Amino acid sequence: MEPIKSFKELSARLTAVGRKRVALANAVDEHSLEAITMAIKAGFVEAYLVGSAEVIKQFDFLQTPDVAPYVHITDIADTLEATVEAVRKVKEGEADVLMKGLVNTDVLIRAILDKEKGLLPPGRVLSFTASFQIPKYHKLLFFADPAVIPSPNVEQREAIIKYTIATARKFGVQQPKIALVHATEKPSPKIQYMNDYLEIMERYRNGVFGDVIMDGPVDVFLALDKERGAIKKVPTPVLGDADIVIFPNFEAANAFYKALISFADAEMGGMLEGTSKPVVLTSRSEDIQSKFNSIALACISANE
Amino acid sequence: MEPIKSFKELSARLTAVGRKRVALANAVDEHSLEAITMAIKAGFVEAYLVGSAEVIKQFDFLQTPDVAPYVHITDIADTLEATVEAVRKVKEGEADVLMKGLVNTDVLIRAILDKEKGLLPPGRVLSFTASFQIPKYHKLLFFADPAVIPSPNVEQREAIIKYTIATARKFGVQQPKIALVHATEKPSPKIQYMNDYLEIMERYRNGVFGDVIMDGPVDVFLALDKERGAIKKVPTPVLGDADIVIFPNFEAANAFYKALISFADAEMGGMLEGTSKPVVLTSRSEDIQSKFNSIALACISANE
Repeated sequence: MEPIKSFKELSARLTAVGRKRVALANAVDEHSLEAITMAIKAGFVEAYLVGSAEVIKQFDFLQTPDVAPYVHITDIADTLEATVEAVRKVKEGEADVLMKGLVNTDVLIRAILDKEKGLLPPGRVLSFTASFQIPKYHKLLFFADPAVIPSPNVEQREAIIKYTIATARKFGVQQPKIALVHATEKPSPKIQYMNDYLEIMERYRNGVFGDVIMDGPVDVFLALDKERGAIKKVPTPVLGDADIVIFPNFEAANAFYKALISFADAEMGGMLEGTSKPVVLTSRSEDIQSKFNSIALACISANE
Repeated sequence: MEPIKSFKELSARLTAVGRKRVALANAVDEHSLEAITMAIKAGFVEAYLVGSAEVIKQFDFLQTPDVAPYVHITDIADTLEATVEAVRKVKEGEADVLMKGLVNTDVLIRAILDKEKGLLPPGRVLSFTASFQIPKYHKLLFFADPAVIPSPNVEQREAIIKYTIATARKFGVQQPKIALVHATEKPSPKIQYMNDYLEIMERYRNGVFGDVIMDGPVDVFLALDKERGAIKKVPTPVLGDADIVIFPNFEAANAFYKALISFADAEMGGMLEGTSKPVVLTSRSEDIQSKFNSIALACISANE
């Protein structure tokens, strides 16, 4: 298949594939319900709302004929219980995607990490993968991790990179180009993560990541800006054409992501990975379109 | 004075003040000579070019009647010797600003750091300060440090912040708003630099930074995006209106800065600080406008 190049294309592709079942933990806030309703109307979601039925039924937009048939309510008023039940639905195959409603992120994460009832298989690493549609970039960009692990170790880095590769493949990117980002293209031996990068590059050469093209350390210009990158005259197979950027720490990923949102008109979608099924965990400061994109990202990742 | 809000205003202000003397180390490359010529034509620079006179005289644009009177050549063909001489001119008060020509950054830095002949007074910290003009931000933004110190300690952070404050004041910002940036507004006690931020905030409350408004940790949205920041409902005096952003490490500052250049049509100028006089150190991947802005930034910083 041709790679998906925009969130609009993503939505169309998902609708063609059919509806995914999304379990919404404590589904009582307007923001997440509006986003899930958009996804129902777009034709790619069937919603399993866990929360107070009394509250949920007050949202008129859930009652329209194009939405109501795809909404199922499990009436649990207690936030923690509702969260645990939504997690159970996903764990036992009754839903394909978990989504956060009106519940504190810490509470949801604890439910996900619960060894018996949670969603993180042993040995897996929790990470946040985001996809970006940037007006001045020629394709969708995937990156990790702006939110979960401050300074990953090399095993965590390998896991995080593998998740983003798997996600890019779901978008039809056959041979993803991956840039390991540093402030410059010069390896700085004194910096701790530089050894991780060298080790990751060694594993890449040994085939650990499959059919991908990887280079690092490179800077953001080399990874994503053909014109400015070319001036550096540093030969790199990712030059200005990376599908995936991996940052050394979560502060760098976070600053990059918020700069793009606030100042470059970027649209984004994000999800938690590492879990047996993707988790949509949007934040208050995101607009409705980003929340919709996040649901779409999780739904395509939940595809077999 | 009213704060300077754009690089165009900066240029006009400098022209009104009068020419600054810029010493250019190994002034034999077209890029730096073009930028210095722009600054001469704009009326705020008198250039002291140190390098091979034979090479320098081949650049016709230095010979025009509006430029030639402000160009002085010291004929030294050897790169290292030319660099040392340019540094000497600045050290001995024959020039107000040092600028890098065709010389490896490492060589220039070594000349600057030389204990006897260099420009870094004992106890001072070398840092890179940048100013940004972002189309979607309502004023100039200052930040540090995307290039020099990977992970500053608390004393280095204090020094870096003081430099950016001094720079903002030269632009007429009376009471700069400073945001100490983290991935979220929640202090994460396990993260090393969080103790630095707490200590810096304590010093701020004790008046160490003078008449400024400081807050941290905050994220990029709280610091620079009034709309998205407000949704978080976190009370902060810098909300969406920071003049200065300080990043926890140089990878974050670097990713932020390159995202803005590549995708948000930002214009930037940058310089080294900590030295007795500002140092312009542009890189090949910068366009001529950025180099011109960097000269202007250094010239206003050299003002008494």
